[in-house]
Amino acid sequence: MPVKFLTRTRELIHHKLSSVISSSSLIEEAMRYSVLSDSKVIRPGLVVASGILNNNLTEDSLITLACSVELIHTYSLIHDDLPSMDDDDMRRGKDSSHVRFGEANAILAGDALHDLAFELIASDEDMNDTAKINAVNILAKASGSKGMVLGQYLDIESEKLNSNLKLDEIEKIHSLKTGKLIQASILMGQLESSLDIKKQEMLYEFGSKIGLAFQIYDDILDETGDSSVLGKSIKSDIKNQKQTYVKVIGLDQSNYIANKLATQSIDILDKMELGEAINNLKSLAEYMVNRKK
Amino acid sequence: MPVKFLTRTRELIHHKLSSVISSSSLIEEAMRYSVLSDSKVIRPGLVVASGILNNNLTEDSLITLACSVELIHTYSLIHDDLPSMDDDDMRRGKDSSHVRFGEANAILAGDALHDLAFELIASDEDMNDTAKINAVNILAKASGSKGMVLGQYLDIESEKLNSNLKLDEIEKIHSLKTGKLIQASILMGQLESSLDIKKQEMLYEFGSKIGLAFQIYDDILDETGDSSVLGKSIKSDIKNQKQTYVKVIGLDQSNYIANKLATQSIDILDKMELGEAINNLKSLAEYMVNRKK
Repeated sequence: MPVKFLTRTRELIHHKLSSVISSSSLIEEAMRYSVLSDSKVIRPGLVVASGILNNNLTEDSLITLACSVELIHTYSLIHDDLPSMDDDDMRRGKDSSHVRFGEANAILAGDALHDLAFELIASDEDMNDTAKINAVNILAKASGSKGMVLGQYLDIESEKLNSNLKLDEIEKIHSLKTGKLIQASILMGQLESSLDIKKQEMLYEFGSKIGLAFQIYDDILDETGDSSVLGKSIKSDIKNQKQTYVKVIGLDQSNYIANKLATQSIDILDKMELGEAINNLKSLAEYMVNRKK
Repeated sequence: MPVKFLTRTRELIHHKLSSVISSSSLIEEAMRYSVLSDSKVIRPGLVVASGILNNNLTEDSLITLACSVELIHTYSLIHDDLPSMDDDDMRRGKDSSHVRFGEANAILAGDALHDLAFELIASDEDMNDTAKINAVNILAKASGSKGMVLGQYLDIESEKLNSNLKLDEIEKIHSLKTGKLIQASILMGQLESSLDIKKQEMLYEFGSKIGLAFQIYDDILDETGDSSVLGKSIKSDIKNQKQTYVKVIGLDQSNYIANKLATQSIDILDKMELGEAINNLKSLAEYMVNRKK
């Protein structure tokens, strides 16, 4: 993993998740199989990197929040991979959950990961109850029918169209399906923020731009990437006739826009004038648009 | 609906859910379709009837909590009805969600209802943050991999057995799949309880007994009920080769045990000596084991 603090973040969230999910049923084994796998931990990384800028959350609480975001992300991948959704057989370098455990168990494992995200926040030992309730609210809103779920629905619907979507329509899908949880990750690191309001707003602006850049780059990798490196099927967007940036404006233009957004994102971070504290967020942003997986 | 306060509870939770779920996407329509349907609202009724005994929650908050339990119950029905799970085409007197909206949308509508349960608690205007976080914790634990989800998994697994389960094994499945959320409903009404600890414990003992009686009666109705009254397919337990009380000990014995548990439950309520305040809970308990649907 090219970004050093991501390696550490992954160790810490895997350690915590490994201790809270036992192996006493096949469902828990399925939960562990998916959530302790080879994730890029970008969303947890954003929680931690955003949280480093905030003096009001302990490292343990940041790891709790990072776990909760990873749990929501992982449950959504399990459900999105199902035959009735995107029908993807490979995820994070191994069989998808439903291929390994069957459809019913995959659905249930997803549902249980979904619950665990909220249970972990509620059980955190350092955060006060107001911070916890704000975290629950942020996460539930980002995931639900006005957020990630709506994005997945619009994404599947768009596959049925005969003509291409307009760019702003694809941007909307991306901002819901991926962007909402990326923004939520940054917001969670800023619970009871010690940053002034102007800097908080700059951070959310950063999140919005890097989130879109990340998803455009995902579209690009589906076209140009190597399945064995990516750990998931490539060309699945084409197979599913998904509406992507690459499909609508081509590879070159997609690369151009993704790079422009990434540059703008990093400019925002520089303008925040937070010294070395911002370095993790910068290296994470660079990784998000320069990765091979 | 034979129990008067249930009718009122249903009006109030439907009013609230109707105002918080818009119709701006097919997913939200699917959410409304399932959650605003002809539910028995037994779990919400338990929240309210338990909450009447507690001076520390407003009626609005009880309705919030009742909605959150109904949302979790409804999402679980949508997922349980899926072809890869129990494959039931009929629910609450109409087509199951996946029959009406397709599998992908049914899964997503379930996921979004799941989020909304937690979002509603977090957004309540009367409860303090400690009560809210306790509610989140109770609900997430009751639903997750040590609760309802585990019960559904064990239930599906038991269908694959060639021999019958023992009675205590079926009781375990029932207590997880149905009992956990019924207990959670009673607990939610007792957040920051004004009852003394002895009475609280009696209430949970009541919940445990009436929850099992309710589920045994569900097994009986699947065998003896009228599909058009029940609003769901009958004999589905037999079709799915489900392990039920009726299958293992027959109808007469099942009726005997259910009635005995119901009598014991109501005895506990009487012994609490709470006067008329207990009447809603009593009539609800009687309804749970004397219903035709």
